[in-house]
Amino acid sequence: MTRTTQSHANAVTTLIASATGFYQRGWMLGTGGNLSVALRDDPVVFLVTASGRPKGKLGPADFVEVDAAGAALSPDAPKPSDETLIHAALYRQTNAGAVYHVHQISAALCSTLDEAQGFVELTDIEMLKGIGVPARAVARIPIVDNDPDIPALAREIERVMNPEVPAVLIRRHGVYTWGPTADDAHRHIEILDYLFEYRCRLAQLGR
Amino acid sequence: MTRTTQSHANAVTTLIASATGFYQRGWMLGTGGNLSVALRDDPVVFLVTASGRPKGKLGPADFVEVDAAGAALSPDAPKPSDETLIHAALYRQTNAGAVYHVHQISAALCSTLDEAQGFVELTDIEMLKGIGVPARAVARIPIVDNDPDIPALAREIERVMNPEVPAVLIRRHGVYTWGPTADDAHRHIEILDYLFEYRCRLAQLGR
Amino acid sequence: MTRTTQSHANAVTTLIASATGFYQRGWMLGTGGNLSVALRDDPVVFLVTASGRPKGKLGPADFVEVDAAGAALSPDAPKPSDETLIHAALYRQTNAGAVYHVHQISAALCSTLDEAQGFVELTDIEMLKGIGVPARAVARIPIVDNDPDIPALAREIERVMNPEVPAVLIRRHGVYTWGPTADDAHRHIEILDYLFEYRCRLAQLGR
Amino acid sequence: MTRTTQSHANAVTTLIASATGFYQRGWMLGTGGNLSVALRDDPVVFLVTASGRPKGKLGPADFVEVDAAGAALSPDAPKPSDETLIHAALYRQTNAGAVYHVHQISAALCSTLDEAQGFVELTDIEMLKGIGVPARAVARIPIVDNDPDIPALAREIERVMNPEVPAVLIRRHGVYTWGPTADDAHRHIEILDYLFEYRCRLAQLGR
Repeated sequence: MTRTTQSHANAVTTLIASATGFYQRGWMLGTGGNLSVALRDDPVVFLVTASGRPKGKLGPADFVEVDAAGAALSPDAPKPSDETLIHAALYRQTNAGAVYHVHQISAALCSTLDEAQGFVELTDIEMLKGIGVPARAVARIPIVDNDPDIPALAREIERVMNPEVPAVLIRRHGVYTWGPTADDAHRHIEILDYLFEYRCRLAQLGR
Repeated sequence: MTRTTQSHANAVTTLIASATGFYQRGWMLGTGGNLSVALRDDPVVFLVTASGRPKGKLGPADFVEVDAAGAALSPDAPKPSDETLIHAALYRQTNAGAVYHVHQISAALCSTLDEAQGFVELTDIEMLKGIGVPARAVARIPIVDNDPDIPALAREIERVMNPEVPAVLIRRHGVYTWGPTADDAHRHIEILDYLFEYRCRLAQLGR
Repeated sequence: MTRTTQSHANAVTTLIASATGFYQRGWMLGTGGNLSVALRDDPVVFLVTASGRPKGKLGPADFVEVDAAGAALSPDAPKPSDETLIHAALYRQTNAGAVYHVHQISAALCSTLDEAQGFVELTDIEMLKGIGVPARAVARIPIVDNDPDIPALAREIERVMNPEVPAVLIRRHGVYTWGPTADDAHRHIEILDYLFEYRCRLAQLGR
Repeated sequence: MTRTTQSHANAVTTLIASATGFYQRGWMLGTGGNLSVALRDDPVVFLVTASGRPKGKLGPADFVEVDAAGAALSPDAPKPSDETLIHAALYRQTNAGAVYHVHQISAALCSTLDEAQGFVELTDIEMLKGIGVPARAVARIPIVDNDPDIPALAREIERVMNPEVPAVLIRRHGVYTWGPTADDAHRHIEILDYLFEYRCRLAQLGR
């Protein structure tokens, strides 16, 4: 199956719309998180948010084209996100058309609650369907440690990825997701917040 | 009493306005939920959201006219919502002008808290009036299991419907409501979230 | 001191702006709550929201001019809010230029938490200043029972009103506030939600 | 290093944009909070919000130019914020281009939870980077008492300031932050709310 790609111009529009929506919901406060969309396949080229930009007011100059190894294609480009290597790893391991990473409080809380067992387990929730899991299946979202060594963190994410669940949590940090298209990745982010909030609030209720 | 109906064009405007509002409040994240408005009566024809569309950006092409049995009227129409049969059952059992279904976290939490007793019981809350219940009456909102067999789920909803309370919860899934007009169904959705949040937050406080 | 009044046209603009803001924050979901502004003094005439209108989309026709006894001035006017007598009582007892009543979940929760003692007690919170109370004073916001007999409810509110705190809670229902101007009443509503949320969330934390 | 400054006109635009965003998130309800931007250095002149203005609808007339001692430069200016002396102290102690103070419920809650130990301690959270702290460092945000004597409060803030963390909490009141530019101060406010919410919600979960 070939990878879905977008033109540079469409990718900019897509990523600004997603970032704006996520910022408004409090999932990309400050400069937190990073988003990318695939522009070409085989080898992959993707457009990723530049490092350190406030996610509530991105403009066309706040994105960088990078190659499969995560290196900027142009010497004049701004510095790509510090976590670009994680995006590169996820494009390598999947057929994703987009990779989205946000800093939801719900994700940070769930990653803390379940850090000892190394995964968040969700089952018997209708909204699991929104990340491609049958409602009654058992979904395990892996949790990796928040390693400041990004190449090591990228390798760890590749190691723990669950082929049946398009998400990985970084402990006390946030969540990565991906999908065949940017619409899928966007939907996954919204559904994951619902699932994490549901899990945290049930825990607050002693369940 | 005859059923209140809208023209196709008005129904599209109504449903987009409701979906947009519900999406902004986090009640239709991703593609979650489905909404319909009656277009004709005796036999009923209704306009329902198409399957799998993101509820935050619906357009005129994201709706399908279906008959009383839930079948699309036109062979060229998109696939109607997977849960269209539930809408059909509710139009059959009531004089509803609209049937709304959303995925509120508050609804999923209450359906989980009270799953053993099979209903959420609410009383002595002013906002009950907003779903047509006197403030001091005892309202029981039935909870049905989240059966992936939609015809069976529709029959179960018909079986448990409480004629005095226009709402049914699906366990760990969401809530269905209906009303004489789309404005009524919209108001019910807003009131139900208030009631479910109030019940959950009181439970968090040990009440 | 004479009462601050607005023209009919300005009062409509003021009340729609307040209702829209409160609706967006979830404090006037459905048709919940009612707002008024004084138009004339001695005897008072005020403009109040009509009964049963959705507070998220009020228009100029959704208001009624009423006299000091709460009766509509024009026979052609829509039915005023069911709780207009409470507004009339508050204008009688105070020099208010506006009376605002909303259905905040935080208000309903606090009124439930403290129903046995009959008041919510707040102290040592900077935001108390926003309702005219020194930060270190002890503010007691009275809680009255949610009596469906509105004349009786209005009398009970007059009886318990605390001259030092411009707010009364109705148990499991909502809050009334008032102020010299509509800007004051609007500010009070915002501050009260902050205070009630702070008190509820501290209680969730076992404080 | 010289201080970053803005023109009066740019500072007004910056402060209105920040206040509007903070108001929408519920961090500047009513007239709560105050914001300033440096206009000149050596000696510093800064533009600060006028006293008692509703933060959701600031206009160009709602700001005052003040000198390093916090006195208005023009006799015709509106009264500067009651807490202007705190801004003056923070400009004196730092190279800040902006000083922001908001009334987040999360800040009030954390300042209450940790009042006995006199600081909020945060560690092992990725978002610490957003306030300039390495994710695995231990950040201590000092808490000062909510002294109504503003000169005394300003001195106490100067005394407890932690050079490694650009934030001070006032007990049951709110948070002050600052940064080289207004963008930095704005980002700090957003990140601090995330950090305080994370800390409070973990505490609700018994962690």
